Amino acid sequence: MFLDKEYLFTPGPTPIPDRVKIAMNQPMIGHRGAAFPVLLEDVATRLQPVFGADNPVLIISGSGTGALETAAVNVIDPGDDVVVIVGGAFGDRFAKICEAHGANVHKLEVEWGTACQPEQLEDFIKSLDANVKAVFATYCETSTSIIHPIKQLGEVTKRLTDGLFIVDGVSCIGGVPADMAGWNIDILVSGSQKALMLPPGLAFVAVSDHAKEAIQKTKNTRFYFDLNRYFDNYDQKKSTPFTPAISLIYGAQEVCNMIDEEGWENVIKRHELLKTMTREGVKALGIPLLTNDKEASPTVTAVMPKDDQANAIRKIMKDKYHISLAGGQQKLSGKIFRIGHMGYCNPYDVLTVLAALEMTIKEMENKDVLGLATKRAQEVWAEHV
Amino acid sequence: MFLDKEYLFTPGPTPIPDRVKIAMNQPMIGHRGAAFPVLLEDVATRLQPVFGADNPVLIISGSGTGALETAAVNVIDPGDDVVVIVGGAFGDRFAKICEAHGANVHKLEVEWGTACQPEQLEDFIKSLDANVKAVFATYCETSTSIIHPIKQLGEVTKRLTDGLFIVDGVSCIGGVPADMAGWNIDILVSGSQKALMLPPGLAFVAVSDHAKEAIQKTKNTRFYFDLNRYFDNYDQKKSTPFTPAISLIYGAQEVCNMIDEEGWENVIKRHELLKTMTREGVKALGIPLLTNDKEASPTVTAVMPKDDQANAIRKIMKDKYHISLAGGQQKLSGKIFRIGHMGYCNPYDVLTVLAALEMTIKEMENKDVLGLATKRAQEVWAEHV
Repeated sequence: MFLDKEYLFTPGPTPIPDRVKIAMNQPMIGHRGAAFPVLLEDVATRLQPVFGADNPVLIISGSGTGALETAAVNVIDPGDDVVVIVGGAFGDRFAKICEAHGANVHKLEVEWGTACQPEQLEDFIKSLDANVKAVFATYCETSTSIIHPIKQLGEVTKRLTDGLFIVDGVSCIGGVPADMAGWNIDILVSGSQKALMLPPGLAFVAVSDHAKEAIQKTKNTRFYFDLNRYFDNYDQKKSTPFTPAISLIYGAQEVCNMIDEEGWENVIKRHELLKTMTREGVKALGIPLLTNDKEASPTVTAVMPKDDQANAIRKIMKDKYHISLAGGQQKLSGKIFRIGHMGYCNPYDVLTVLAALEMTIKEMENKDVLGLATKRAQEVWAEHV
Repeated sequence: MFLDKEYLFTPGPTPIPDRVKIAMNQPMIGHRGAAFPVLLEDVATRLQPVFGADNPVLIISGSGTGALETAAVNVIDPGDDVVVIVGGAFGDRFAKICEAHGANVHKLEVEWGTACQPEQLEDFIKSLDANVKAVFATYCETSTSIIHPIKQLGEVTKRLTDGLFIVDGVSCIGGVPADMAGWNIDILVSGSQKALMLPPGLAFVAVSDHAKEAIQKTKNTRFYFDLNRYFDNYDQKKSTPFTPAISLIYGAQEVCNMIDEEGWENVIKRHELLKTMTREGVKALGIPLLTNDKEASPTVTAVMPKDDQANAIRKIMKDKYHISLAGGQQKLSGKIFRIGHMGYCNPYDVLTVLAALEMTIKEMENKDVLGLATKRAQEVWAEHV
């Protein structure tokens, strides 16, 4: 009875708008011809407000992890002391990447499902007998649906160290505010397949002037991810050193059109609304959330049902109601499920996932919960229309 | 906050599945080459169970009205006595078409919003001093969302006349059962843009052997709509006499794939479910429906709010909630709005339109109706999953 409709609520990849699909199907062009530089410059500059960046955003063909590695390998040399805030699977990945490139990694372990407090970072840095070359933070920790207080963490970094502040924005940039200069961010990276409504395949890297200088001095081994090559190519000919994923960049241009049409401030407000609708809806069903409201992400919500029922719920949601949710990762495996509500997502989409969740809970617990979550979410929505 | 998502709930055109759009974008082919006959025969024969037809379904480039005219002009000659059942705007259109082609039209007027009872047709035919050449009926009267009892009306026609029984199935074929032989239907026509999940542009005409003979004898003036030309071309070379809408026929092939995958019986059950969810949901809001449950269409529901609020509701639904509904036609203009729930429509879609209706009614009447319709519709759904 669902036809071929499948409902993708994972925190990336996310659904793609028809108009973006159409844009991606424009005739292929050569990236050394006259048309590509016009396209690349258009996208690189129009993404600046989304990244809160003073410089055009560099675009690399690769995944979000490629973006993380790019950020790391361009600023650390073997033996450098770096701090990595680890409050989930993606903070952990940042640490592993830094280790792979020979850094002396100081992990600031934060309880999964909570945000790193500025005081925690302050105490941690003070406790180190080290010249911190960089602090690596995760803006939205996808695995726990936490938003870390980037502005405050950046302030601590700059006050206590001479190092760079490097931020993973993969699972939130495009749905949340960012201000690289105001928040002391030196490198902010993201991927295409989350709030930016594109298929996977583009890694975005926004770099401050200060970081650009540091990158020039970094001697670490790299070729494909060497940002100096990207700067040179962009500055000299508005191109990329290696073959760009042209159709995805066409798609990114259409995403810029959509963001302009909606208005960037409205995009941020929409994600805040989707977050609140989702959280209030789940609460109305009596199901616990992993995080508190204040630290919760506008792009993804982690739900922690009692008795480790997360995967059982997820299975029924998928098999019977054709809704794809994400599970927990690493130490949260089997403990939570995660609802993505970013990018090409509007209030009706949240009502859809909540309606299916009601149907699932009713079936599992034989409880009359139909309408509870959706009604509450509609009440939240009604305050905003 | 809606992005570019617009929700089409008119009773045609209806939303198009992605896979049908993709199928329609296959490379263009010449219709006098070797590939087209293979495509046409595939679609013409696979549509047979959908039309309950013993013969391949003829495909004409044109709209639903083109299909109606084709049915009429091929069976009536000027001066012929015909009966047309008129219980809404499309029965009325059938009558106007018959008049335009010189028939002596006897209109059986039925109260709008009710179905023609077999006894009404029986009494009407008996009251005529005429040799009835054909009886024209509407299976789903789109303008009132009524299903006329085609089987019973066909029985009356065959028992009391030597004429043909001609049925307009434009707004329901593809979502409801049909049995031309069992129901004594001689010609059953439909269009592409309703339950068949295609864009407008194809007129479908299913013809019984008995009607085929009658068509050969009809002398009425016609060229493009002359079914003899379509029979000849199909029989001799599996082609069409005039240029076919090739991309739409590719789309129709993919629709046949989708119907096969879902199973034709399941398609019918899905439409019954969508009807009941819609009707029960609207009732839970205390808003009257135009028709009774028994005579209501599985493809479209006419809602008749008190105090002629139909267009006010429709305006808020469109302007504020991005949901397109249809209004009333002719004598029902301003009295009703209509929700299409056919074709590429599943239970989540019905929940979406009902959620928006709740938001609209809450706003217009300042009443706490959130969740009432959706919860009731979910209850109906839960009985079927």
